[in-house]
Amino acid sequence: MLVVMKHSASAEHIRAVVAAIKDMGYGARPIPGGQRTAVGLIGNDGAVDSGLLLGLDGVLEVIPVTHPYKQVSREWRETNTVVTLANGTRIGGSEVVVMAGPCAVEGEAEILELAQKVKDMGATVLRGGAFKPRSSPYAFQGLGREGLELLARAREQTGLAVVTEALDPEGADLVAEYADIIQIGARNMQNYPLLRRAGRTGKPVLLKRGLAATIDELLLAAEYILAEGNDDVILCERGIRSFDTHTRNLFDLAAIPVVKSLSHLPIIADPSHATGLRAKVIPMARAAIAAGADGLIVEVHQDPPRAMSDGAQSLYPEQFREMMEQITVIARAIGRDVTPPLGSAPTG
Amino acid sequence: MLVVMKHSASAEHIRAVVAAIKDMGYGARPIPGGQRTAVGLIGNDGAVDSGLLLGLDGVLEVIPVTHPYKQVSREWRETNTVVTLANGTRIGGSEVVVMAGPCAVEGEAEILELAQKVKDMGATVLRGGAFKPRSSPYAFQGLGREGLELLARAREQTGLAVVTEALDPEGADLVAEYADIIQIGARNMQNYPLLRRAGRTGKPVLLKRGLAATIDELLLAAEYILAEGNDDVILCERGIRSFDTHTRNLFDLAAIPVVKSLSHLPIIADPSHATGLRAKVIPMARAAIAAGADGLIVEVHQDPPRAMSDGAQSLYPEQFREMMEQITVIARAIGRDVTPPLGSAPTG
Amino acid sequence: MLVVMKHSASAEHIRAVVAAIKDMGYGARPIPGGQRTAVGLIGNDGAVDSGLLLGLDGVLEVIPVTHPYKQVSREWRETNTVVTLANGTRIGGSEVVVMAGPCAVEGEAEILELAQKVKDMGATVLRGGAFKPRSSPYAFQGLGREGLELLARAREQTGLAVVTEALDPEGADLVAEYADIIQIGARNMQNYPLLRRAGRTGKPVLLKRGLAATIDELLLAAEYILAEGNDDVILCERGIRSFDTHTRNLFDLAAIPVVKSLSHLPIIADPSHATGLRAKVIPMARAAIAAGADGLIVEVHQDPPRAMSDGAQSLYPEQFREMMEQITVIARAIGRDVTPPLGSAPTG
Amino acid sequence: MLVVMKHSASAEHIRAVVAAIKDMGYGARPIPGGQRTAVGLIGNDGAVDSGLLLGLDGVLEVIPVTHPYKQVSREWRETNTVVTLANGTRIGGSEVVVMAGPCAVEGEAEILELAQKVKDMGATVLRGGAFKPRSSPYAFQGLGREGLELLARAREQTGLAVVTEALDPEGADLVAEYADIIQIGARNMQNYPLLRRAGRTGKPVLLKRGLAATIDELLLAAEYILAEGNDDVILCERGIRSFDTHTRNLFDLAAIPVVKSLSHLPIIADPSHATGLRAKVIPMARAAIAAGADGLIVEVHQDPPRAMSDGAQSLYPEQFREMMEQITVIARAIGRDVTPPLGSAPTG
Repeated sequence: MLVVMKHSASAEHIRAVVAAIKDMGYGARPIPGGQRTAVGLIGNDGAVDSGLLLGLDGVLEVIPVTHPYKQVSREWRETNTVVTLANGTRIGGSEVVVMAGPCAVEGEAEILELAQKVKDMGATVLRGGAFKPRSSPYAFQGLGREGLELLARAREQTGLAVVTEALDPEGADLVAEYADIIQIGARNMQNYPLLRRAGRTGKPVLLKRGLAATIDELLLAAEYILAEGNDDVILCERGIRSFDTHTRNLFDLAAIPVVKSLSHLPIIADPSHATGLRAKVIPMARAAIAAGADGLIVEVHQDPPRAMSDGAQSLYPEQFREMMEQITVIARAIGRDVTPPLGSAPTG
Repeated sequence: MLVVMKHSASAEHIRAVVAAIKDMGYGARPIPGGQRTAVGLIGNDGAVDSGLLLGLDGVLEVIPVTHPYKQVSREWRETNTVVTLANGTRIGGSEVVVMAGPCAVEGEAEILELAQKVKDMGATVLRGGAFKPRSSPYAFQGLGREGLELLARAREQTGLAVVTEALDPEGADLVAEYADIIQIGARNMQNYPLLRRAGRTGKPVLLKRGLAATIDELLLAAEYILAEGNDDVILCERGIRSFDTHTRNLFDLAAIPVVKSLSHLPIIADPSHATGLRAKVIPMARAAIAAGADGLIVEVHQDPPRAMSDGAQSLYPEQFREMMEQITVIARAIGRDVTPPLGSAPTG
Repeated sequence: MLVVMKHSASAEHIRAVVAAIKDMGYGARPIPGGQRTAVGLIGNDGAVDSGLLLGLDGVLEVIPVTHPYKQVSREWRETNTVVTLANGTRIGGSEVVVMAGPCAVEGEAEILELAQKVKDMGATVLRGGAFKPRSSPYAFQGLGREGLELLARAREQTGLAVVTEALDPEGADLVAEYADIIQIGARNMQNYPLLRRAGRTGKPVLLKRGLAATIDELLLAAEYILAEGNDDVILCERGIRSFDTHTRNLFDLAAIPVVKSLSHLPIIADPSHATGLRAKVIPMARAAIAAGADGLIVEVHQDPPRAMSDGAQSLYPEQFREMMEQITVIARAIGRDVTPPLGSAPTG
Repeated sequence: MLVVMKHSASAEHIRAVVAAIKDMGYGARPIPGGQRTAVGLIGNDGAVDSGLLLGLDGVLEVIPVTHPYKQVSREWRETNTVVTLANGTRIGGSEVVVMAGPCAVEGEAEILELAQKVKDMGATVLRGGAFKPRSSPYAFQGLGREGLELLARAREQTGLAVVTEALDPEGADLVAEYADIIQIGARNMQNYPLLRRAGRTGKPVLLKRGLAATIDELLLAAEYILAEGNDDVILCERGIRSFDTHTRNLFDLAAIPVVKSLSHLPIIADPSHATGLRAKVIPMARAAIAAGADGLIVEVHQDPPRAMSDGAQSLYPEQFREMMEQITVIARAIGRDVTPPLGSAPTG
């Protein structure tokens, strides 16, 4: 951390800053410059509250130099984390993973039929909401535990792994009983009791970036899970809030190579929520793979116009097949491959 | 809701849209125009999922006409909601309320001394975090239940009402036992299980706007609380995320008159979190009152440079006194008044 | 400027950074830390291109410490700049100035009548567009030179000073012939040939903040004008782009005290463009004055529903009178005053 | 355009709205609904100023239904516009075009050598700034006309077409004398005199999206050029402003398929300015092509750490070669091809 002094700061002001830093238990190193002096804070290994220094006389600004996250960083661990699921799917390795399914689990026949379809087309993880966070209290809120049971049944029949969202700490325990991956949604990215409880279950966690979250805040949220001893975190870029209304959110694909350089954790992309528009899902799925994403999570529905939520962004099954074909070619173009369909011969 | 058809849409496409709307249980009214036809959806009283229509052939876009919130709207209730606390403080009436205290409760002596000070200077509600949501898992997380007990003790000694944050549903029950107002922080604005549980306690709820939340989303989050039968909701503008780094957030003061015209709920402002800078708190507190805010919530600390969190934005007690003097003049300039200090003679 | 090295940077890498800095003609000072080394760049007095350093091996990031503007900064000049117009109006002193008039000059009778009205109600500067930047090429683009002549006639009759916008370098010369203040609109904040030419006219320049401009970029744009030897720059906060659609822009009132601490230049506020909504202009005008703005620029029209542009945000004359009354009270509440109406006895 | 009335609007209010619309020369059609009435405005073929209606009593909001641009829209022209340059390069057809070169033209030897290199590696258009818009007046502003002459010499020697930026109307005429494509930079996207003059030259225009520009505003800016009778406009996505500081801007790749569906104009992408980071240019170049971009414009420099501007985002020539190889594979993966190097046999 660097404390930049005002041009007009006196030697007394600088001494007071040095003293305050030493009081905090760190080393202080004044760096006189042409225009002004800065004081380096040395010996911290993460978060230092700049407020203690910013309030002192003569201080112009405080510039953080080290990032406040640790275990998620590449400096902590150089090699990529690979999250391995019970059905053998590996996330973060050389293969690109596809998670697909409806926005919400709507009924037994529907989910079993759709699960079989997306499996046949090459998905290895089934997505589907049992607990739905909805902006309006009057909108459909999901089937709850019954939804979890239907997902588990779909897993039995197809071999697909299951990812589904938890909305509160109790829900995290419940989801952990049924699912292979606990999803933390964008609205809950900084719901710390939920992050901690999900971490403690030991299950892999899919952590979606919040609408207003910086990349550093996403990594710090992941740090909450790793701090519970759970390294199996999969990050997800799903669009952030911006000012254009043509798409639901703004898909920040550059976040993918940025996260890859800062962290060892895998990162996937969600072109369905990022765009909110069925017709844009396929090109943006291609773009995400081209940018280096470790996988995709996409919404598919047998009959999107009748979906109970997010119909406008759900692919028809035939479109999903087309997407799989296209991303397979893109993945190979950059020296990767899409995870082979379950039950098929391994690619080696 | 208005379904706008493409220029090239056929009569068949329009008939399919009409049929789909009727299937959903609403009325449909085609409106032929010079360039294109639109179809009005009639008879909905709130949320309609546009996805069901946006996916149909020939549809260009779907434009929501009615807002999806109900009980929070001025059309539902014309007169202002006034939230009355046990110590007589009224929020949303003609008087402007000030809530003040440290970011976090740090110890008994500190909180009792500071509570007395802010009371003497005119605050009628004491703020102070017992459970702190922190970006980093390694930062100070608050004293927990002990913090709640210290707040309760400060209330006994001073008569101040108490507002403090809950982070999860269980925490909401706990906070409700000790505090007069349950605070929902910006990160949790769309934490629906928390909103519901806070609503069910029957205690007044202070709901802070999320960093990426539109005004409509803030009102919809409040609707979750009202939907539990709890009308005592106080909204709070505390800055949203933007691109300039000089201030911590972007203080959206125009949200205050906008909320006032859309909703009957009171709205206060938090210049401490909005700016993140002690030196900007007083001018922005003045501006918030001038814009029509029903009150303020501000951070005050005996010794900000040594605060355990948010020191850079906490006022010194002397600055708080100055702020109170200035907003009192501003409030009078617009025909309001600051709530008189507890124990003083009523202003009438 | 501080060059932060990676944890893994070698001594060789650090030497190369030091050498590169010396090659650039600056001093270099390595600062070994607990986790990593940083290298301070010393002796620059403004802009250094970080690209030269960011590309070197072992460099993690480059952090600018000094700001790249000079003459606009408080460190360059401590006392407030006061811009004085021919009619005696002073901008940036203790008095608050009001500029008012139609969005666009529409005709002689209209502008003369309205000028008289706003003068009688206390404005001392008349605004009105002769050249209008419009998003659509098919929208009304202003009366051009004829508009300038009408403004000059209104000045003769009323004594009001005139502010109007220039859209290109030639236009700046033309506007300078007729107006007291050359306005640079938000879309042209970084139109450098225009800034330079406006600077060279020697006339006061009203520089509006761009929709995506940081405060630093606003100050740098002003620096272009001062670099031409013209110190008479008035900054204007008029709202920036954000995601909420209830208001046209997001009024960043905290920019006012921030600019005041960084720069000696006066700053006024434009609540008409910031909100885009007539009903929000008065509360936000009050808020701007309470936040410390040196003045306001507002749109007023005799018959807003028939205005040729921006009708929805123009005040009726009666509302303008109400606004003047309210901001007069607010200005006094913070120890300032509104500039007395032209022709009235001085307030002392 | 749809005028939505308040719940409380009277029949009189509705009649006044109908009358006002008819006064404006359009048709009006009241649409009674369950909750409120709306009035449709019929017969407009583009921009209608909503201010005239928004100010009437009883009006809740005014919703634009038709977009205000015409000639740029797919409804105006269904087939893709293909811009053909003198050297045969076609932009907007099936082949993907690459424009490459330094941020600024720095000297004769440098530009000739680099032009040859990027040509050999497959670029068909040379970029390079002669007039540089710089945030600071003290930064290098380009070589001016001398830079244009050097670009022309590089074209003679290599056969590359040339694209370079104009900053003002006179500059547009000058650039048109020397270059094949006139570039309008992001800061000037709404510099209407410049757009008009560039349009009138008849030369192809590369129009970059402004930092705060919506997609509709980008299309409206292009409309200014088409309105001058010049259809040869190439749009460019180059990142918009957002809140994360890891990348210079936020690359909105979804804008590419969105523009493709709204307009017939070609759109290319600029991963150099979008990310500001050399190491992210290649993955984002791949992503842009995968998303459907018609080409790329990228910064390349022989010795980026010594570049006079934007060194941190310029590729080394070897990296540019790598980028060309990777995007060639991606282009083929989606059924396109990169324009063959000049002088090579046509691909057919």
